[in-house]
Amino acid sequence: MNYPNGIAKNIVKHNISYKNRGMKLESDLNVTNEFYQSIDKAYIYKKPTPIKIVHVDYVSRSLATITEAYFKEPSTTDYNGIYKGKYIDFEAKETKSNTSFQLDNIHKHQIKHLKNVLNHGGIAFLIIRFVHLDKTFLLTANDLMDFMNSHSRKSIPLSYFEEKGYIIRNKINPRVDYLEVIDKIYGGIL
Amino acid sequence: MNYPNGIAKNIVKHNISYKNRGMKLESDLNVTNEFYQSIDKAYIYKKPTPIKIVHVDYVSRSLATITEAYFKEPSTTDYNGIYKGKYIDFEAKETKSNTSFQLDNIHKHQIKHLKNVLNHGGIAFLIIRFVHLDKTFLLTANDLMDFMNSHSRKSIPLSYFEEKGYIIRNKINPRVDYLEVIDKIYGGIL
Repeated sequence: MNYPNGIAKNIVKHNISYKNRGMKLESDLNVTNEFYQSIDKAYIYKKPTPIKIVHVDYVSRSLATITEAYFKEPSTTDYNGIYKGKYIDFEAKETKSNTSFQLDNIHKHQIKHLKNVLNHGGIAFLIIRFVHLDKTFLLTANDLMDFMNSHSRKSIPLSYFEEKGYIIRNKINPRVDYLEVIDKIYGGIL
Repeated sequence: MNYPNGIAKNIVKHNISYKNRGMKLESDLNVTNEFYQSIDKAYIYKKPTPIKIVHVDYVSRSLATITEAYFKEPSTTDYNGIYKGKYIDFEAKETKSNTSFQLDNIHKHQIKHLKNVLNHGGIAFLIIRFVHLDKTFLLTANDLMDFMNSHSRKSIPLSYFEEKGYIIRNKINPRVDYLEVIDKIYGGIL
């Protein structure tokens, strides 16, 4: 898989995520994952944003510029990796609501992806932060599927997170220690 | 992680990969992975191409157009997923050489990524196709690291693939049956 002449190695230094402007949870998770990696606890990383490229200008031999492209609907989740040899997969979302999480924030293909991960023996979950409540929950993909199978409503109420989900404590380091919760839930099989 | 208004769901139907024009191995692997998924054997998929977005035009409320972006050097491999509960990870490359595979086709970050996968108990490998010889090899990441640790040369000779690698047979379905080789190598632990 050869790159065109002109991979832009050093053109832009800061990783601006246009689809997640100002999303604190994303940066908290990046720092958390770097921490896990630094202490050799787990190797979990963010996938690239899926982009549909329509036009590329080969400006010079050393530089290819994409001049027309679009955001694609994601077919997988944002994060995956390995923890204690197990495949780990999750999607992370913030909500400004104080009462519920809108399910249309998770795309159909992402739901299918989470099901596939479960079917093949991986560990799959959501991390949902209620920004104004300053509460971050981990909800297993199994509990997500249970909810979707037994409810017709288009949002998951906060009460469901409080009942079935697990609070991820705010810490200094790691900032969002979701593996602490994973140990609690899956401890026996890890 | 909210998308801007105007995800381009149906704008372009064909998935043209600008960095892999004409790469037969990629399409063979996509078909193979779809086959594995269809028979519930494994869930392995291609990650999005990493792109550095510099400018986005919000043309209308319903359409965001990326008007300036660049290909980024990949920090991970192209493929990962789950097989029998295990984390699977690999990079696939074609070479037109009949004698060796140039190591600079694998970026430094990708080597580090493969090491991380190994360290955390995942299964990591390369799939290298010598196009003109019509031979496709699977080389484990362990054997890749061994080679790099014991040789200063910048390419892996065909003879090393013949000695340490495993031929992936051409089949009708699945087209590139690399899991057959994985079963052979790791059968005991899967």
